[in-house]
Amino acid sequence: MTEKRPYILVTNDDGITAKGLRILIDTAKKFGDVLVVAPDSHQSAKSHSITQAAPIRFDKVVEEPGFKEFSISGTPVDCVKLAIHELSDRKPDLILSGINHGANTSVSVLYSGTMAAAIEGGLHNINSIGFSVDNHSSEADFSPVIPYMEKIIKEVIEKDLPNGVSLNVNFPDVTKVDVKGIKTMRGANGVWGEKFVPANDPHKRKFVWITGKLTNYDEGKDDTDLYFIEKGYATVTPIKVDFNYYSFIEELSDWDFNG
Amino acid sequence: MTEKRPYILVTNDDGITAKGLRILIDTAKKFGDVLVVAPDSHQSAKSHSITQAAPIRFDKVVEEPGFKEFSISGTPVDCVKLAIHELSDRKPDLILSGINHGANTSVSVLYSGTMAAAIEGGLHNINSIGFSVDNHSSEADFSPVIPYMEKIIKEVIEKDLPNGVSLNVNFPDVTKVDVKGIKTMRGANGVWGEKFVPANDPHKRKFVWITGKLTNYDEGKDDTDLYFIEKGYATVTPIKVDFNYYSFIEELSDWDFNG
Repeated sequence: MTEKRPYILVTNDDGITAKGLRILIDTAKKFGDVLVVAPDSHQSAKSHSITQAAPIRFDKVVEEPGFKEFSISGTPVDCVKLAIHELSDRKPDLILSGINHGANTSVSVLYSGTMAAAIEGGLHNINSIGFSVDNHSSEADFSPVIPYMEKIIKEVIEKDLPNGVSLNVNFPDVTKVDVKGIKTMRGANGVWGEKFVPANDPHKRKFVWITGKLTNYDEGKDDTDLYFIEKGYATVTPIKVDFNYYSFIEELSDWDFNG
Repeated sequence: MTEKRPYILVTNDDGITAKGLRILIDTAKKFGDVLVVAPDSHQSAKSHSITQAAPIRFDKVVEEPGFKEFSISGTPVDCVKLAIHELSDRKPDLILSGINHGANTSVSVLYSGTMAAAIEGGLHNINSIGFSVDNHSSEADFSPVIPYMEKIIKEVIEKDLPNGVSLNVNFPDVTKVDVKGIKTMRGANGVWGEKFVPANDPHKRKFVWITGKLTNYDEGKDDTDLYFIEKGYATVTPIKVDFNYYSFIEELSDWDFNG
């Protein structure tokens, strides 16, 4: 750790009014100066999307010594990019995203705006952590996770993550169970299958709501996030983006279309 | 290949009116029965986002023997999910996404709606291919890519991709150069750095437009998509989603927060 107080960017995908964000901000303030750049509206399941087709509006809503807060008409990844390139006094030492209302285990990382913000931070070689709790209610009290978040944040600041790597931290439903401990685990392989529920529309147009159910391909495997969340543990998963499927490149190079 | 004509889902992220989509539909029709499920508006850079906070509207716009077309008030991934679960006669044999107006090389895969649709297809173990051309103009004529797309589609139908794998196919700017050939290559490592351009707003509110520049960490390396696109080749990259950074799990398990 340098002498200087760490400079911490806080964002989320549930929007600037979310209870989970407020707990994360209070936790961040214990570790350093804090810049909040959060979406002005719900941005769940926005994945890594950015706002290209419209200009982005931003408003400073709080400015105090060591603390600034901005509201952004964009996605979580917009927030991180705008924070890094426009709104920060200096390059953040740490990005904290969440606390998400709902777990981001297994393949949900792909859809999550909370984790996209952390991943974007990792791409810029900034220590980045996404926090999520397995409870979707906007009213849920996530304060039991504070001591666990503090333990993880403290150690990340001390040791630094490898370049390009972010952490995905998931908690069980702390409104119902006590956290038994923290386990570093891989994310389970899985897939979301959808059900579309017809919406009632007074104008008789056809609408549907998306709903889904996760199939865990690693059911019962004791080295996954889903296994330990179910048992009441928090899980930490190191995340890195690399879409290349290297082990198939050689075989595909032999297909006839090459030349 | 089975006796039955392949059933092909076509989608994109530039929206149902895009010229690139029309070329892809015409190409798909040569190979099988076609279901088009495309966004009703521009959905560039929407990544893997899904529409959770609003109901999705869908309208059938064409129905002919062996051909149906739906317009969807959602993202490319919404289109794939809705197609698979609600709008298909049977499970598609092939998903084609694009032709995107703009390249999706290197780390752009993470932001691209076109590639997200192909990746979603891969997650459902459906042969899926995203096509993109390195020209952003909505007026650009992409017809020179047709014979190359046909070669790739034909072979994918014959041989099948491994489960969970999709293909990312990028073409150079075919309005300016002849395609020299097709090369299977990994996606280059890189990162998008942003510049935010102030927007003129008659009400004097603060707006910015996001713009960006890709830094290629693999500059000069001759096994990447960016290297060969620059030289006038089309590139094919096998894509698989796995965010776990396995090589760091053991070390992270030894950090003090575990227990």
